Amino acid sequence: MAKVVTFGELMLRLSPSNNDRFVQSHQFSILPGGGEANVAVSCAILGHDVYYVTKLPSHEIGTLALDALRSHGINTQFIARGGERIGLYYAETGSAFRPSKVIYDRAHSAIAQADAEDFDFDTIMRDADWFHWTGITPALSPQLAQIVKQACQAAKKHGVKISVDLNYRNKLWTSQQAIQTMRPLMEYVDVCIGNEEDAAKCLGYTVNANIQCGETEHKHYEPLLKQMMQDFGFQLVVTTLRESYSATHNGWKALLYDGHEMYYSQYYDINPIVDRIGAGDAFAAGLIHGLLSDMPLQKALDFGVAASALKHTIVGDFNLSSQQEIVALMNGNTNGRVQR
Amino acid sequence: MAKVVTFGELMLRLSPSNNDRFVQSHQFSILPGGGEANVAVSCAILGHDVYYVTKLPSHEIGTLALDALRSHGINTQFIARGGERIGLYYAETGSAFRPSKVIYDRAHSAIAQADAEDFDFDTIMRDADWFHWTGITPALSPQLAQIVKQACQAAKKHGVKISVDLNYRNKLWTSQQAIQTMRPLMEYVDVCIGNEEDAAKCLGYTVNANIQCGETEHKHYEPLLKQMMQDFGFQLVVTTLRESYSATHNGWKALLYDGHEMYYSQYYDINPIVDRIGAGDAFAAGLIHGLLSDMPLQKALDFGVAASALKHTIVGDFNLSSQQEIVALMNGNTNGRVQR
Amino acid sequence: MAKVVTFGELMLRLSPSNNDRFVQSHQFSILPGGGEANVAVSCAILGHDVYYVTKLPSHEIGTLALDALRSHGINTQFIARGGERIGLYYAETGSAFRPSKVIYDRAHSAIAQADAEDFDFDTIMRDADWFHWTGITPALSPQLAQIVKQACQAAKKHGVKISVDLNYRNKLWTSQQAIQTMRPLMEYVDVCIGNEEDAAKCLGYTVNANIQCGETEHKHYEPLLKQMMQDFGFQLVVTTLRESYSATHNGWKALLYDGHEMYYSQYYDINPIVDRIGAGDAFAAGLIHGLLSDMPLQKALDFGVAASALKHTIVGDFNLSSQQEIVALMNGNTNGRVQR
Amino acid sequence: MAKVVTFGELMLRLSPSNNDRFVQSHQFSILPGGGEANVAVSCAILGHDVYYVTKLPSHEIGTLALDALRSHGINTQFIARGGERIGLYYAETGSAFRPSKVIYDRAHSAIAQADAEDFDFDTIMRDADWFHWTGITPALSPQLAQIVKQACQAAKKHGVKISVDLNYRNKLWTSQQAIQTMRPLMEYVDVCIGNEEDAAKCLGYTVNANIQCGETEHKHYEPLLKQMMQDFGFQLVVTTLRESYSATHNGWKALLYDGHEMYYSQYYDINPIVDRIGAGDAFAAGLIHGLLSDMPLQKALDFGVAASALKHTIVGDFNLSSQQEIVALMNGNTNGRVQR
Amino acid sequence: MAKVVTFGELMLRLSPSNNDRFVQSHQFSILPGGGEANVAVSCAILGHDVYYVTKLPSHEIGTLALDALRSHGINTQFIARGGERIGLYYAETGSAFRPSKVIYDRAHSAIAQADAEDFDFDTIMRDADWFHWTGITPALSPQLAQIVKQACQAAKKHGVKISVDLNYRNKLWTSQQAIQTMRPLMEYVDVCIGNEEDAAKCLGYTVNANIQCGETEHKHYEPLLKQMMQDFGFQLVVTTLRESYSATHNGWKALLYDGHEMYYSQYYDINPIVDRIGAGDAFAAGLIHGLLSDMPLQKALDFGVAASALKHTIVGDFNLSSQQEIVALMNGNTNGRVQR
Amino acid sequence: MAKVVTFGELMLRLSPSNNDRFVQSHQFSILPGGGEANVAVSCAILGHDVYYVTKLPSHEIGTLALDALRSHGINTQFIARGGERIGLYYAETGSAFRPSKVIYDRAHSAIAQADAEDFDFDTIMRDADWFHWTGITPALSPQLAQIVKQACQAAKKHGVKISVDLNYRNKLWTSQQAIQTMRPLMEYVDVCIGNEEDAAKCLGYTVNANIQCGETEHKHYEPLLKQMMQDFGFQLVVTTLRESYSATHNGWKALLYDGHEMYYSQYYDINPIVDRIGAGDAFAAGLIHGLLSDMPLQKALDFGVAASALKHTIVGDFNLSSQQEIVALMNGNTNGRVQR
Repeated sequence: MAKVVTFGELMLRLSPSNNDRFVQSHQFSILPGGGEANVAVSCAILGHDVYYVTKLPSHEIGTLALDALRSHGINTQFIARGGERIGLYYAETGSAFRPSKVIYDRAHSAIAQADAEDFDFDTIMRDADWFHWTGITPALSPQLAQIVKQACQAAKKHGVKISVDLNYRNKLWTSQQAIQTMRPLMEYVDVCIGNEEDAAKCLGYTVNANIQCGETEHKHYEPLLKQMMQDFGFQLVVTTLRESYSATHNGWKALLYDGHEMYYSQYYDINPIVDRIGAGDAFAAGLIHGLLSDMPLQKALDFGVAASALKHTIVGDFNLSSQQEIVALMNGNTNGRVQR
Repeated sequence: MAKVVTFGELMLRLSPSNNDRFVQSHQFSILPGGGEANVAVSCAILGHDVYYVTKLPSHEIGTLALDALRSHGINTQFIARGGERIGLYYAETGSAFRPSKVIYDRAHSAIAQADAEDFDFDTIMRDADWFHWTGITPALSPQLAQIVKQACQAAKKHGVKISVDLNYRNKLWTSQQAIQTMRPLMEYVDVCIGNEEDAAKCLGYTVNANIQCGETEHKHYEPLLKQMMQDFGFQLVVTTLRESYSATHNGWKALLYDGHEMYYSQYYDINPIVDRIGAGDAFAAGLIHGLLSDMPLQKALDFGVAASALKHTIVGDFNLSSQQEIVALMNGNTNGRVQR
Repeated sequence: MAKVVTFGELMLRLSPSNNDRFVQSHQFSILPGGGEANVAVSCAILGHDVYYVTKLPSHEIGTLALDALRSHGINTQFIARGGERIGLYYAETGSAFRPSKVIYDRAHSAIAQADAEDFDFDTIMRDADWFHWTGITPALSPQLAQIVKQACQAAKKHGVKISVDLNYRNKLWTSQQAIQTMRPLMEYVDVCIGNEEDAAKCLGYTVNANIQCGETEHKHYEPLLKQMMQDFGFQLVVTTLRESYSATHNGWKALLYDGHEMYYSQYYDINPIVDRIGAGDAFAAGLIHGLLSDMPLQKALDFGVAASALKHTIVGDFNLSSQQEIVALMNGNTNGRVQR
Repeated sequence: MAKVVTFGELMLRLSPSNNDRFVQSHQFSILPGGGEANVAVSCAILGHDVYYVTKLPSHEIGTLALDALRSHGINTQFIARGGERIGLYYAETGSAFRPSKVIYDRAHSAIAQADAEDFDFDTIMRDADWFHWTGITPALSPQLAQIVKQACQAAKKHGVKISVDLNYRNKLWTSQQAIQTMRPLMEYVDVCIGNEEDAAKCLGYTVNANIQCGETEHKHYEPLLKQMMQDFGFQLVVTTLRESYSATHNGWKALLYDGHEMYYSQYYDINPIVDRIGAGDAFAAGLIHGLLSDMPLQKALDFGVAASALKHTIVGDFNLSSQQEIVALMNGNTNGRVQR
Repeated sequence: MAKVVTFGELMLRLSPSNNDRFVQSHQFSILPGGGEANVAVSCAILGHDVYYVTKLPSHEIGTLALDALRSHGINTQFIARGGERIGLYYAETGSAFRPSKVIYDRAHSAIAQADAEDFDFDTIMRDADWFHWTGITPALSPQLAQIVKQACQAAKKHGVKISVDLNYRNKLWTSQQAIQTMRPLMEYVDVCIGNEEDAAKCLGYTVNANIQCGETEHKHYEPLLKQMMQDFGFQLVVTTLRESYSATHNGWKALLYDGHEMYYSQYYDINPIVDRIGAGDAFAAGLIHGLLSDMPLQKALDFGVAASALKHTIVGDFNLSSQQEIVALMNGNTNGRVQR
Repeated sequence: MAKVVTFGELMLRLSPSNNDRFVQSHQFSILPGGGEANVAVSCAILGHDVYYVTKLPSHEIGTLALDALRSHGINTQFIARGGERIGLYYAETGSAFRPSKVIYDRAHSAIAQADAEDFDFDTIMRDADWFHWTGITPALSPQLAQIVKQACQAAKKHGVKISVDLNYRNKLWTSQQAIQTMRPLMEYVDVCIGNEEDAAKCLGYTVNANIQCGETEHKHYEPLLKQMMQDFGFQLVVTTLRESYSATHNGWKALLYDGHEMYYSQYYDINPIVDRIGAGDAFAAGLIHGLLSDMPLQKALDFGVAASALKHTIVGDFNLSSQQEIVALMNGNTNGRVQR
């Protein structure tokens, strides 16, 4: 059991029932989520001692979100309380060729307006083993970009490994802004996770593959990973590769480069998909767990992909899969027989 | 934005939750629908100024149905109020080889018992651009067959284009009755939509293809469309072609003949289907929109089929798809990636 | 049937089921509402031709709110689309001595950030009979205070009667700001509705009664109403008087002064209360309806109070009561026998 | 355990959730009910061998209703299957001074269109101890009035006691029609249950008390009961007396006359009421049970009133109270302490 | 219509909504079920006179379960009441490669602790045509193993055919215990249903096929069936063969041997599966119905497989399919077209 | 903030919706609860560092219960995992004179079968300030009675204050067993909470007042409290006094004796009650909080009663009230005005 820290925004996902569209909805399910929180929950379920850091308003809706984290055993003592509102996102679930749709309402959230004084990263990082953040956090506000830098510095000071999921969000900033902010932050990063679009929009690489069309040939990705490794000196560069056949049918695999060797993960044909939001975070958490557990790189990668594949079958952002379930899938048990 | 008029019966669909069967249900979802109302809702969402004409009881259940129409922006000022009851249909949703099942309880409805005095079609059709009705309406009662004729005559007087969806319903009348009523009404029709079964049962054609088996070879349909064109002088004859592999997996395309050329639509493999009721109406509305928007025939046909394909992914009779979504699908975007 | 215009903010109310508290909720009901929208819905149900003016984001959540208005027959053609977000408020329902609780998340809404160019009040007010607004609207932003003034001026130009519900909201502005903004706006007002707290906080009056304790002796209110009449030259000054025995048991009545005579309404003992949010708006709408229908003042006041009393028995902000139901209650039918 | 037969119409009640109004509903609960079915269910729960007789359509919605009866142990072997539709009624639940509202949609039901050949009452009544019907059944159609007569004759032939609940329904027939039909049927009746309105509308008596106002002084009722006894030679005449303070607060008691003595039941102050539909039927069933169990008249009356009082706390038409619970209440246990 | 008796444990299945996992659930659906009860319900729906025998606690949760049986027309007069608790099982529904999961909480149930005196099998078996039990019942407790033997003896005495579904449950007993108990009971059995695992664990056969991997080649099974026939003198030996591609996609067929010939059933590719629990019981019931209806063996087998295939599309343990629906599927109607 | 330890059984409450009865239920809400867990949750919400000790099965249903505790911030590190099952109780909610009903299914639970080795009370009690248990825990099994003694001894060793809520449960043991077990345990207790029935059944006192009838005159209780104080040397003896007018209307107050003075709490008239289960635990937690916060005895008592009164308005066992809300009520704010 390692001490894991993640830092970012926790939102409430408000979702219509089943496949209902927004405009025909009369109630919303409340499903808390957010990239770094999703990683935190996965790591906690996998047995780690997880500290999630964010800022939530002090009213009951903030507490509702906080309680959801605590229910999974996350340590919330470093979560600041205050600010105006909790970010929201509305999400309807597609089917076949109708895509799922996300409408963000996250501006002006407590975390986006947080100050450096809200967090004491020197205390937070003490004795930590791993620090994970995503490119969403610095995109929320200039102060947050600054705070992320401080968090990374504190982590480095305490010898904490740092992973980032680049996660470019075009609703939050332009590629130009992203590149300007993210490139300097890469100096602190040990493990860099991102797909081609992220590499292009956050780090400024030119990429060729047509990602929207789901072109996932490894050969398109290998040179990019090597170039990233060379430019930033990461220990590991990782990318997930999604083949989108439809909203309910995807292919899923990943690629990892350690500067020496390319590792190709197992491949999952996922049909039907229940909910794919948070799958990338489930992968990151699985990979982190694998690395923290000293799995060989191939196995750590496969564990991450299996964890993430399972996430596609679970409603909500959080990957409510146990280590045992992930291992069973990783070991090839895909027949779905009833477990009694 | 054109003025569109549709006329027919609005029912309440009462449906068990998800895939539950009738006999295990303890609550019903209320989903208003009906062929011409479905077309009205689609046209309103696509931006037209839509007048839906029917008769609804004056009590709150009638108002509940009325409100559902108004919520989508339909103009309901010509809806008569009065009569005994609103028609219902119970519908359970199948899966795999278990078919969805519809039980009608529509007899004695307010619209089935409406009189000619309930509607002032001369006023209704003034300045209208399009009038759509289906073969269900004249099947409801002899008076309604007469009223449909009056509506068509008023439409013609005001230079309104008329489309019909033949829509044979064997629970409402015999083929003999249908032929006797529908053939004379064809004189008013500009755009005739119907499949082989409709052509046979409503217009008296002999058809060869085994529709139940889902035989959808174009060659079986082309001679029929040509014959219909020749016999009735339609401007356009159109048929949708469904390949039923299972309750949750269908193929879907359409064929249009303008007297000169055969137009073959794009083909959609729909899996999984969420709810296919109302797909034909979504097609009619899409086609009408295409024609009203002066799209070329091929594009209007493709728009109709794409609209209709999307309907299969939406719960309820109404096609709650935007023009933008339909165009995206028509342009080949079928990968279902999350829209953020 | 008169033409009625209202202008303000439409929010989505997100509410736990039944009496559940926020922190134990896993879904929210979606109940659109907002002072002026509530008045609009009531007036529409009472048969008027109602135009509600606001600004809503162009995404589907904005459309969801718009559709709710349209479902009740409100004309939404003057609603501007655009802006960042729709305002929300979270509301849990109390019981006995546990109060209902509202948490606002309305800052930065589309309407709060609207510009003068979003609304053409000269067109909107043409042929209108009545314009209603509340003190919430100018509190949303300085621009909106300016826009309210423009709306009032346009109304006056077109000879439209103006009513205001003072509705002081301490989360939106200070009393000082309110007084500075509201007093000048009173010059346009014909009918002023407000309780003692509103008179104090919005108009700067000193009041004595202990409102929190539910002291509702008429004698405390009469001098205030007379003073308001004298200071601002209203045609009518009106106040509702709530006696809060508990979250589920209230007394309810109102007082109206026309410069000559004091009118005391009927009194309702309401137990149990289902949902009291929007009751003040239901009163305003009932009073407006009474005045537009040329009821004598006593009857118009009683109609408003009866309408409002019924609202307490209905879930959501909107008063879904018919004229017939309100009249029955006003005429003393309080026995609640099943209506078959 | 006695053999009890009841005959009448089973409907599906479709109800919004909780206190929701019809026009704000998106789903309906399915609650089967109907006067004689309600009595049948109560008698079955109280341990009798109950045969309910009606006609239901052969489709699954008919089966859904049938299954609800069977679930309570009712013998359904004499229920005819066929006909067009099952009767429905929509019911919303009021609160305080907002009354509950029922909208019937029962015309053209299978039972209303049943023929004499659908039922073999000679077989049905063999070995029966009690036959109960209500004034609703003969009101459904002239054939049914005739069939009720045949049922009564068969019952008499087999020495079966007959009770009727007069239950006047002004939506089904005029008082004149009711009197013409019901008076001759009284010759078969042993136990007649009805309130003043029923006595007036079904049997033609002139009554003085203002029932709508809830005047329930015994003295108004005693002469009526004596006159009914004298005119028709009943063994027992019974009336329930409801004091309607509001939709959620009623007083409830009953009065019984055996030709010699007046029996006054216990009185219940019921607050809050959960659902009062079916309370009269719960009373009839309780009384029948008391009489079949050879309770003294006072006790049988008290048992009926206690049973009925409990029904007010239960959702749906059926009185799901056990004998033990009824006896506990009858014995004065009204404190509502948690039963562990 | 034959008289069918089944004997075993009825549990309440408590299930999260849709695909929700246990740990994210806030409510459970209540779905009664259990091997022999499932067979009973199917047989009752297929028109037989079915007596289900078990023991249920006398409290309301026991009655809730009892009512569910009665609702389908099962005769429950021989169900003993008493004991401590009703058995439960929690079941979450998987998707794709995430398996459904069952957690049993059935120990100490009323039936597991039942005594011989609770059941009078001599009376129960009188005039019966068929008695069905499964290997689960004797596994519940040593007394029950004894009682099953008594039931079989009583059945034999009255000339009742006996079928068993071996149904090995490793949570209830070891293979050694099973073999010791089950082998002697086989002497009473006419029709033995079981797959390879059952044959191995309950009867002690050595089998080769890798069932977990879904190897369903007939050749692996034929020698086993022949050997079982030879060893125990069954009239028929039957096995179902499931190919598990995923939790939502299975292949399904069966094999029957009558001592002379091997019968191979139709094959169904089931995708998507709604709920596969109870599919084996649906098969047994379908086969029993076929045999009781004197269908030829091939047709009886096909009927059983078609019945069972339909069960996969229905939520809950019970196969709510009609004879007409099963026959339609058996006759090849798999296209899933809407039935109107 | 103090360190508080509680020890006992956590059950899942399974409840029908709203006022539905068990036999009409098709789903259950899952509401975890249990006397000591309820106290733990309250104390955690009031800001204390709470350790709840129990044993839960290691499967997901156990985790579901565990997560519910963690969501409120309880430290669960000392909860043992293992054993057979989690205890359940079914609870339906009454109304008016229909009592709520609880059916227990808690036998054989993991905690009832726990061994001394499951808990290391020496570690658990280190640095603790308060230990609370109830008379339910030793009633679960003889081992648990022994373990409670060990827990008390460890608490004493570490100088921890001990409170007990006597809480006699006649379904778990006889009064004779209770007296034999509980009296010796009183030697460790500092604060003893219990009503007359508890005093009689757990400690063997003879009491006169008719508690079932809700006789709550203080004079009946004072001598008892004094005697208990004298016999066992408690620091404080406390009793809550409930006046049950109906299932939805109760009076509520408490009495405390410190050996010198009698303290009489405020009195609450609670109408309507939403859910009274757990109210006694809410009182205990409020009192403990008051004592830990060094409130004067009168204020601590009033705080406990106010906390408990609020619990009656909240669904579920847990008192989800904040300190601020409790203080507001204690200070007399009972008017239930909407908090905005």
